[in-house]
Amino acid sequence: MTNSTDFQPLDPQQLTADLIRCASVTPEEGGALVLLEKLLSEAGFECSRADRGEVSNLIARWGDKAHPKTMGFNGHTDVVPIGDAAAWTVDPFGAEEKDGFMYGRGATDMKSGVAAFVAAAVDYVRTTPPEGAVLITITGDEEGDAIDGTTAILDQMAAEGERMSVCLVGEPTCPNEMGEMIKIGRRGSLSAWFTVTGVQGHSAYPHRANNPLNAMARLMDRLASHELDQGTEHFDASTLAVVTIDTGNPATNVIPAQARSTVNIRFNDAHTGADLSAWLRAEADKVAEAFGVTIDMTVKISGESFITPPGALSDLVAAAVKAETGRMPELSTTGGTSDARFIKSHCPVVEIGLVGKTMHQVDERVDIDQIHQLKAIYSRILNDYFTAD
Amino acid sequence: MTNSTDFQPLDPQQLTADLIRCASVTPEEGGALVLLEKLLSEAGFECSRADRGEVSNLIARWGDKAHPKTMGFNGHTDVVPIGDAAAWTVDPFGAEEKDGFMYGRGATDMKSGVAAFVAAAVDYVRTTPPEGAVLITITGDEEGDAIDGTTAILDQMAAEGERMSVCLVGEPTCPNEMGEMIKIGRRGSLSAWFTVTGVQGHSAYPHRANNPLNAMARLMDRLASHELDQGTEHFDASTLAVVTIDTGNPATNVIPAQARSTVNIRFNDAHTGADLSAWLRAEADKVAEAFGVTIDMTVKISGESFITPPGALSDLVAAAVKAETGRMPELSTTGGTSDARFIKSHCPVVEIGLVGKTMHQVDERVDIDQIHQLKAIYSRILNDYFTAD
Repeated sequence: MTNSTDFQPLDPQQLTADLIRCASVTPEEGGALVLLEKLLSEAGFECSRADRGEVSNLIARWGDKAHPKTMGFNGHTDVVPIGDAAAWTVDPFGAEEKDGFMYGRGATDMKSGVAAFVAAAVDYVRTTPPEGAVLITITGDEEGDAIDGTTAILDQMAAEGERMSVCLVGEPTCPNEMGEMIKIGRRGSLSAWFTVTGVQGHSAYPHRANNPLNAMARLMDRLASHELDQGTEHFDASTLAVVTIDTGNPATNVIPAQARSTVNIRFNDAHTGADLSAWLRAEADKVAEAFGVTIDMTVKISGESFITPPGALSDLVAAAVKAETGRMPELSTTGGTSDARFIKSHCPVVEIGLVGKTMHQVDERVDIDQIHQLKAIYSRILNDYFTAD
Repeated sequence: MTNSTDFQPLDPQQLTADLIRCASVTPEEGGALVLLEKLLSEAGFECSRADRGEVSNLIARWGDKAHPKTMGFNGHTDVVPIGDAAAWTVDPFGAEEKDGFMYGRGATDMKSGVAAFVAAAVDYVRTTPPEGAVLITITGDEEGDAIDGTTAILDQMAAEGERMSVCLVGEPTCPNEMGEMIKIGRRGSLSAWFTVTGVQGHSAYPHRANNPLNAMARLMDRLASHELDQGTEHFDASTLAVVTIDTGNPATNVIPAQARSTVNIRFNDAHTGADLSAWLRAEADKVAEAFGVTIDMTVKISGESFITPPGALSDLVAAAVKAETGRMPELSTTGGTSDARFIKSHCPVVEIGLVGKTMHQVDERVDIDQIHQLKAIYSRILNDYFTAD
């Protein structure tokens, strides 16, 4: 298709700008996947769509299907809403450049990441066609419910016999400085909603009532002051946050019948969602019995914790980061969740991206130098992966 | 003015009906005090008004001003609103009689009580002019803020040199059966509003936030599980009710900045409002320090506890109740508050009335027999008081 003499490397800065100009607020495709499909097809990738519901998803493979040496890249082109348009000092979909930064919704989360690994992969297969395959998967539903996104991609891959040997997710991973952190796992997340029901009554006669707030205060104090663990080999300590307690009783002379609360747990690999649900239920039962109240509980497990233990993949990525940035990255499991939680069931997965400080904020922006650095990191990873024994 | 041969006793049942037909929802006078002033003036009482603000109040004295043997009666003709008019099966201001009951707003609380002591007093001074005085005080602001009611009456009495030696308040005092209870004191009431302020943050990073709900749950648990006392000679144990805890945070991934709660304490003579406020502040300070949060507290003391210790007055009242009903009444300090809390600074005060089951409810009604029984009790008290040594 091309030869090295007239080779023009793909500019990730330009590609980031082109992607920002696609207004792809979840679940709008906004032209972003169409653009990538065209570009990757022209570079020799075999593209297919894994659309589901109102969500568009793209699978692009270079090389043999299910090749035993297949490097995967995963990312998303959907973005969160711009929020208060008047608060932006630039066009949120304008990709304006100013003082070394490119502005726009998705600038860091994560159109620059997608642009960087697409540019690295395209350049690599064009200049150094490897013994193996590269599989790029891009979803349009990471910022939404994530039900019809990477899950739909993995379902279609299973149906079609597509495989990845390892996978990199290009989400921003660095808190402050480029190269300081990669993520080898994530904590799980669970929310629980409690409703405590007692017996309403007059404040002057509490013995004729049964105040649900006494049980609620005890239960929330017990949960909030319980040490779930002290951290594990690769994880910080699990945390529990009481996010709300509500009653809505304006009358000082009335003991309310009911109170509600919500608890959110971020948990490491010492726990499962099921274990924590059982523990919460047991704590609620103890308090319910002690206070003679009824406690209803609803639990939603948003994701289990997962870990790709330090090893070949993280060593490879860390070495590339060190070579390009001079920093040996921390192998972290902190922060929220990402689509890596789905991919971890498929193959080893590591997240490596740039600084995410302004993600989801007004005037989201990316340091343009970091886009180029990130492409260089991905290029080095590709080279090291395919040239290793 | 009259002699015993043509004496017609005053019918408390008819007077109750006349008063119910005055729509005297606080602060409306509704014609009730005008009616009583006319009736009492005709019976030889010297009447004056102690109106203040938009409230009407009546002072009616028979006999010498500040006579060292003056029996006082206190009551109110104002009533609470009727609430849902459609829920009433009768005209709330119609005084309809059915199956031995008279219906209407104020039937028990406390137009029947006022009618009974006015009838007893008028008959007594007409048939047996005593060596002493009778002072009847009626307010139009007991159900409201009670700022311009009995307080205004007592202020005017002080200014005019009026005195009572003892006072009976005619509020309903019996939970179920006529004669079973009189009140010799009341608990105090205090409300406290807490605002706990921490540091907002993301549920995934609780170490960067400071959750006010952890401190709130601990503080409310400490307060609710604290035993204020085990009761005193004349009082049940003081009680504390957490009446509401509120946050209003719908986001499971956000730790809120602030939470609010309200606590209501009903306290006996082991405490004062000031002591309890200081205790609450100290508890809040301990928790604030332990959790590194700020806790603001606002306190309102609605009334201090008070007691007229069992003695001459309660003995006199209890004996009259026993003679008329066959029941020896319990000397109680239970329940909410009443205007007796103001009168207790002036003279010994006891509350004695009929069964208050339907007070403040739809289809409020009074057992007609009880109106006559109550008049008989007040008549016997008057006679025993003035004929005692």
